[in-house]
Amino acid sequence: MTRSDLTLAEAASLTSGADTWTTAAVRDAVPPVTLADGPHGIRRQDPEAGDALGLTRSVPATCFPPAVALGSSWDPDLARRVGAALAVEAAALGADVVLGPGVNIKRSPLCGRNFEYFSEDPHLTGVMGAGVVSGIQSRGIGACVKHFAVNNQETDRMRVSADVDERTLREIYLPAFEHIVRHARPFMVMSAYNRINGVPASQNRWLLTEVLRGEWGFDGVVVSDWGAVDDRVAALAAGLDLEMPPTGTDHEIVDAVRSGRLDEAAVHRAAGRVRALAERVASAERHDGWDVEAHHELAREAARASAVLLKNDEDLLPLDPDARQRIAVVGELARTPRYQGNGSSHVVPTRLDNAWDALTAAAGEATTLTFAAGYRLDGAADDDLERRAADAAADADVALVFLGLPDEAESEGFDRTTLDLPDVQVRLLRRIAGRCPRVVVVLANGGVVSVAGWRDAASAILECWLPGQAGGSAVADLLLGACSPSGRLTETIPLRLADVPSHLHFPGSDGHVVYGEGRYVGYRHHDTLGTEVAYPFGHGLSYTRFEYSDLEVRETGDNTWDVGLTVTNTGGRAAHEVVQLYVAFDEERPTRPRHELRGFAKVALEPGQSAPVSFGLTGRDLARWSVARGGRRIDPGRFTVEVGASSRDIRLRAELSTPGDGWVPALDGMSTLGEWLDHPVGGPVLRERLGGAFGGRNGGGPPPALLALARGIPLVKFRTFGIGLDFEVVNELVAAVRNTRHD
Amino acid sequence: MTRSDLTLAEAASLTSGADTWTTAAVRDAVPPVTLADGPHGIRRQDPEAGDALGLTRSVPATCFPPAVALGSSWDPDLARRVGAALAVEAAALGADVVLGPGVNIKRSPLCGRNFEYFSEDPHLTGVMGAGVVSGIQSRGIGACVKHFAVNNQETDRMRVSADVDERTLREIYLPAFEHIVRHARPFMVMSAYNRINGVPASQNRWLLTEVLRGEWGFDGVVVSDWGAVDDRVAALAAGLDLEMPPTGTDHEIVDAVRSGRLDEAAVHRAAGRVRALAERVASAERHDGWDVEAHHELAREAARASAVLLKNDEDLLPLDPDARQRIAVVGELARTPRYQGNGSSHVVPTRLDNAWDALTAAAGEATTLTFAAGYRLDGAADDDLERRAADAAADADVALVFLGLPDEAESEGFDRTTLDLPDVQVRLLRRIAGRCPRVVVVLANGGVVSVAGWRDAASAILECWLPGQAGGSAVADLLLGACSPSGRLTETIPLRLADVPSHLHFPGSDGHVVYGEGRYVGYRHHDTLGTEVAYPFGHGLSYTRFEYSDLEVRETGDNTWDVGLTVTNTGGRAAHEVVQLYVAFDEERPTRPRHELRGFAKVALEPGQSAPVSFGLTGRDLARWSVARGGRRIDPGRFTVEVGASSRDIRLRAELSTPGDGWVPALDGMSTLGEWLDHPVGGPVLRERLGGAFGGRNGGGPPPALLALARGIPLVKFRTFGIGLDFEVVNELVAAVRNTRHD
Repeated sequence: MTRSDLTLAEAASLTSGADTWTTAAVRDAVPPVTLADGPHGIRRQDPEAGDALGLTRSVPATCFPPAVALGSSWDPDLARRVGAALAVEAAALGADVVLGPGVNIKRSPLCGRNFEYFSEDPHLTGVMGAGVVSGIQSRGIGACVKHFAVNNQETDRMRVSADVDERTLREIYLPAFEHIVRHARPFMVMSAYNRINGVPASQNRWLLTEVLRGEWGFDGVVVSDWGAVDDRVAALAAGLDLEMPPTGTDHEIVDAVRSGRLDEAAVHRAAGRVRALAERVASAERHDGWDVEAHHELAREAARASAVLLKNDEDLLPLDPDARQRIAVVGELARTPRYQGNGSSHVVPTRLDNAWDALTAAAGEATTLTFAAGYRLDGAADDDLERRAADAAADADVALVFLGLPDEAESEGFDRTTLDLPDVQVRLLRRIAGRCPRVVVVLANGGVVSVAGWRDAASAILECWLPGQAGGSAVADLLLGACSPSGRLTETIPLRLADVPSHLHFPGSDGHVVYGEGRYVGYRHHDTLGTEVAYPFGHGLSYTRFEYSDLEVRETGDNTWDVGLTVTNTGGRAAHEVVQLYVAFDEERPTRPRHELRGFAKVALEPGQSAPVSFGLTGRDLARWSVARGGRRIDPGRFTVEVGASSRDIRLRAELSTPGDGWVPALDGMSTLGEWLDHPVGGPVLRERLGGAFGGRNGGGPPPALLALARGIPLVKFRTFGIGLDFEVVNELVAAVRNTRHD
Repeated sequence: MTRSDLTLAEAASLTSGADTWTTAAVRDAVPPVTLADGPHGIRRQDPEAGDALGLTRSVPATCFPPAVALGSSWDPDLARRVGAALAVEAAALGADVVLGPGVNIKRSPLCGRNFEYFSEDPHLTGVMGAGVVSGIQSRGIGACVKHFAVNNQETDRMRVSADVDERTLREIYLPAFEHIVRHARPFMVMSAYNRINGVPASQNRWLLTEVLRGEWGFDGVVVSDWGAVDDRVAALAAGLDLEMPPTGTDHEIVDAVRSGRLDEAAVHRAAGRVRALAERVASAERHDGWDVEAHHELAREAARASAVLLKNDEDLLPLDPDARQRIAVVGELARTPRYQGNGSSHVVPTRLDNAWDALTAAAGEATTLTFAAGYRLDGAADDDLERRAADAAADADVALVFLGLPDEAESEGFDRTTLDLPDVQVRLLRRIAGRCPRVVVVLANGGVVSVAGWRDAASAILECWLPGQAGGSAVADLLLGACSPSGRLTETIPLRLADVPSHLHFPGSDGHVVYGEGRYVGYRHHDTLGTEVAYPFGHGLSYTRFEYSDLEVRETGDNTWDVGLTVTNTGGRAAHEVVQLYVAFDEERPTRPRHELRGFAKVALEPGQSAPVSFGLTGRDLARWSVARGGRRIDPGRFTVEVGASSRDIRLRAELSTPGDGWVPALDGMSTLGEWLDHPVGGPVLRERLGGAFGGRNGGGPPPALLALARGIPLVKFRTFGIGLDFEVVNELVAAVRNTRHD
């Protein structure tokens, strides 16, 4: 893109906002674009609210389940429908772009913003994020994928440098963004606050231009996270199109062009992209309002699909709503629900269900329900509350104990410091378990909580995450068996915080956080090392049982395969199973995670029903990032296709083998003797030139121990060894290899 | 140093060798200096041997215990005596400099060269390395500390980049070198083959000039590891003085000066240092030979002091040499000892003891000894050998089973791939344990071997490492109670290879090894996370018992303390105890290792005897490296002084508190609101300027959750928030802080 019909000053004005939520307009050539927070609900600032960022007051909108819950549904179609509903509300509230979804990887369960993210796994994150983006954009409203990239903590987020090696970036922290950009084509990407290996994401040319646009073909607008830009000129030159909110520094852009420090074409290019965005959203659907009830029902459906049944001893759940029974509902959170986190994603809901009301409404006449608060939300001890709750539980057939994290524990802007539930809640649970043998724990939390210290006190545990405004009725649906839980863990629940792979490297200090665990995040770490966990990635029970059979892997072309199997509901209730496909690499000394999720399918099955499930696998699913190649590489060899119900519950296995991608590294003088000897071209060339010095066709050569040592030495280093490998000979050999074509 | 009386060509000639082992001479102005391999024995190439590097044949010299064993003595005075003996042999063999000790940190037990290194701990490594250097140089012979730096693996050692953060460098990989340079003033330092964060160690100006000479005051010669130099000019400019062996490229130096690419003064500086080395070693003691028997006895003493008694159920050891008993000595290694590793450190010994001969010579007449080989050293199964050994054990009162790694498993040039003993040996042990209830395992290995899979089959385990040429007689001394074991583990023995902190990051790929575990190496990792280990760092049993009492910590000045205690031999035998001092930092979320070794003392005690032990502690012992400060920093707070017999056997604890070092970071606009509010100067300045916006003296301000979020935001980022914090105000605040002195 070159010079446009805009002046330089006009173009510069488009690269910053007009106000906190709106881009600049230029004459009638470029209309403004309105952006709204909204990964799980539209946050349009109340015009009456005083603070510029509007964190405290916004107009009502449906609060759908945040990503921690929606992701646990493992249902990209559901994500699409939620996205479409978000778009309708955005349009009705006058917004053109929804600032979401957030697709950062859950590197540590302590990250304060994990409730806004999907998973510890990039494949799952990418597929679910693409679902949300497709849904939003199906209505013509723009989506803005964030926070690009490697924004995995809140501590010092506006300065900290995420120090992470390239292979880890390419295999863990970038693939979800790549998948979404390639497959869902979002209108916008939001650059993160943090630095990556020292370079601010908002000024990172490699990230914003070479990778995002060059490799992945992104054609939209890159906007800064709010306040992320330190240097307007550097950011624009790196590929950032739009600074938000405006800082009144457009003159710096103009001055930089005039002084020759900035290419004017770069300004017009960025402005052109903002203009193109305005043109794109001009064709969005317009809505005056929306069906509040229907959206609330969608939020309820999503919350139902997201809850994970961690434990269900002796099939305690579901409760029969028509049985003659006494149910003690315990816990302030049953009455005062936690359903979303704090910070920019905070939504003022259109309605708010709570579990106590929903349970009392849904239970049959024979059921007696009692409520006891049990604890204070502020964490202060209250023996009287505890005692009354324990008494209520003692009189009941079953106690439903609602536990969770306090509202102030989970927010954008800071990280958690512990995985533990509040002491008063765990103490209450123990007291109740001592009086009532049938205890169900219902959890509300945005980040993972530790369960190892108390799970023995509960027969069943239903993890509801932060379920959005309809969470209360959804949990009643699940507890009383209106539907079966079908959520699965998108992140490992560790036994101890000390087992988290980033534990010793989180959140860093002195402005740096070293990603020391590398590509071994979550189950990639635990399953490779064989670490015991509380509940593994992908885990989630159902009210029925499923059987897997007939796994078949069929080669369909060069490094492409079809994987087929059958899954059968062998239990007594209709339910969904989430079939998970992993590709495994078994090595004594690991060079990559033991296995990685490469596909999944959520399947609805009536009792006794079977269904075929199929997946496609490509070479990329087997590949690793090769720094030496500067790209992905498929090593030749055997891989195992694993199909199962969690990363630790593999039901079927099959092998496949690949010839690799044929890539052979180039040899030079710094290639080692071993690399030369093993090389399809270099080996014969070297042997011919040096005769039997390193063992010819008929054996001979140095003793094995000396050869083992020598194999690690670069060829050029042999020049002082007196074996005839001087500089000239090495150069001849290198030339000979370059001139020999390798098939 | 400026221009000398040497011509440029003469000076250039001094920056490379004359041949593989000798530096260049210049007229009669500069004599040559002869260097010899020799961390644990002098390796002077046999003039008759053909290969230039002389790896295969050398003239006989005493093979003292390699560093893996000598380090396990925890006795720097012993190291000093061994060093002095090495110097005498070097002088007798015509060498001026001994190329040792090797002081790299044992990052992984798989490193093929671990037998040449002391420990996973930098303090222990530094003290033991300084002992060797002091001993060598006490005779006027030069020592050459190697391999500087971060040379922790053999895989791809000539190319691989050790990618490691600065704090880890400063706290783990550099301190041993620093300690030795500051306290023992070695004549030479050898730069490593590998790269550090992409820059070859031999061309690393930061390492060789800024840190080594600038910060630590090194005034000797930096020599390349043999063949490490890729670029003569870059290496010399970075601070490398001497390339070895010569590559005939002196003209590159001269050309670079003539073309202006290299400062001539740098050439004269390097040449001047080589010349100064020649002058230094000119005053070395001269010896025509040495007392071979005395040196052998010293090697035996060192081997005795180095063996670690890992396990001794029911005090099975020592055996009474005068008892009426049948002893089955099993294992080829009892007859064909492994006593050193392979590669450049390989020594042709003056004598060689084996355990079988030594045991038969030392046992009394009432003792009957039988020998059975039990297994083949090449690892091939031999059922007949096994059966005969099991039969011999079945007839015996006790079986001494000698196990260990094969000779070809441990060498410079490649790493191990497993911690396991050969299968045939473990199978033999199980077979013997089934026939003889009293089994003692005697181990010979240079790198740690796993014990978890078989230790139940042994009542006692004596880890002898690679004990040098007198190891056979030393082990007889220990087994038969001539002295008590006093070696202690200098590295953790993990339960599984997967528990090693570098496991997922070793040895890297594609030319990079990421030091992902950071400063959590060895016990720093295990003790911080509470990981179960087979035997902890510092562990080692004795034939007696020790009690610790009367710990006292006394402040003696600004951040200096004296630590005193009493240790008592409460058992029945004379023995040595190794008293270990750790400084501990207890944190819920670790920001540093839970504790670190800061002192140790080896104390000889008769039965019933007590002795006072004292240590000095300084601020540096409490400090951490601060990247923000660019130096060490003492945080104010409480620390625990721990004294014990291993990192997991702490006997006494006392607290100390420090006001810190008074360093306060400077504030600027990118300092966060939290940093401003907490700053002794900035807090009051900010509160005064903004009134009660963030809470005044009488409370008020934003709600806690919003303040928690806001605390992480850099001050300058508030400029779009509409709270009066525009650029000018921020600049005023920064100026106000700079103008206010802080006491």
